[in-house]
Amino acid sequence: MELLKSKIVQDGKVLSDQVLKVDTFLNHQIDPPLMQAIGEEFAMRFKEEGITKILTLESSGIAPSMMAGLVLGVPVVFARKRKSLTLVDHLYTASVHSFTKGETNEVSVSKDFLKKEDTVLIIDDFLANGQAALGLLDLVEQAEAKVAGVGIVIEKGFQPGGEMIRKQGIRVESLAIIASLENGEVKFVEEAVTE
Amino acid sequence: MELLKSKIVQDGKVLSDQVLKVDTFLNHQIDPPLMQAIGEEFAMRFKEEGITKILTLESSGIAPSMMAGLVLGVPVVFARKRKSLTLVDHLYTASVHSFTKGETNEVSVSKDFLKKEDTVLIIDDFLANGQAALGLLDLVEQAEAKVAGVGIVIEKGFQPGGEMIRKQGIRVESLAIIASLENGEVKFVEEAVTE
Repeated sequence: MELLKSKIVQDGKVLSDQVLKVDTFLNHQIDPPLMQAIGEEFAMRFKEEGITKILTLESSGIAPSMMAGLVLGVPVVFARKRKSLTLVDHLYTASVHSFTKGETNEVSVSKDFLKKEDTVLIIDDFLANGQAALGLLDLVEQAEAKVAGVGIVIEKGFQPGGEMIRKQGIRVESLAIIASLENGEVKFVEEAVTE
Repeated sequence: MELLKSKIVQDGKVLSDQVLKVDTFLNHQIDPPLMQAIGEEFAMRFKEEGITKILTLESSGIAPSMMAGLVLGVPVVFARKRKSLTLVDHLYTASVHSFTKGETNEVSVSKDFLKKEDTVLIIDDFLANGQAALGLLDLVEQAEAKVAGVGIVIEKGFQPGGEMIRKQGIRVESLAIIASLENGEVKFVEEAVTE
């Protein structure tokens, strides 16, 4: 998605070979027209899948998911992150380890909002090691709902998450796939292929 | 806002005289067309204020803020909640106590995203004791930015937050103001007045 890639190049900060900061438009400050374009792109790519619900993770997944939900005409559910859960009676829960933050969170969603009849599109802001996506997939599986696919705003193609999930036969659509952040420069997968 | 009030009556769950649960459309599952209508309503009420930025709090404030930001054509910043903050160098921070959860969180926003030149609309999902709104107002004050007002989706009119903030001369626009949740029934302020 060219608009997104331009924004990443223009406003993203490469903090290391592993870390891209996009706080100016996605993870702290949000650019609403860009989120609208992202939502439309997700909706376009998944419109044939009979989606009934979008599942995302608080907080950065909410804005792009909401716009996709608006276009697809389906509700959005955001899974909640907690260090530990005490009351899990009416919840589906999964553990998600963040390598970046070095912590494990429980993510959970109420059983009221994921049903066996649902066809779920999972949306998240980043795909790197795939732990968050796997946690969300786990929640959908517990609900015995169908997974339509995973929509990712920015995939770090040099980390194993994307391959791991695609190998399970799950459709992953990433709007920008980063090949490398070496030397402080963002290279996308398409550019890397044509070089 | 009639659409919102109907939704509260139809889908809200009164858990006690103090607690209204709106997990089906605002706090866990999100109803995108309702968020769009809410965003348009905030934008309409504050359109003359010269707003340059919307400030909200993760996670439930993000969806309505994003839609308001889209209509007003301004970026949205969501303050982050943390139990404790270790690195506060480049952050404005404030403490927010939640009476409901019995815990205090630090809320913070990067100094990059709130500037002296900004005219800020604060948006949040609920206004009850006013602690979250006061925390966000504190962040804006630290940045020496101007406050245009506070936009609230649901105000609990029987709790002191709204009065406390209005007494400071700050404009508060709440799209639904609840007069009482007694006997498991939602009464809005208008209804209470006309009875």
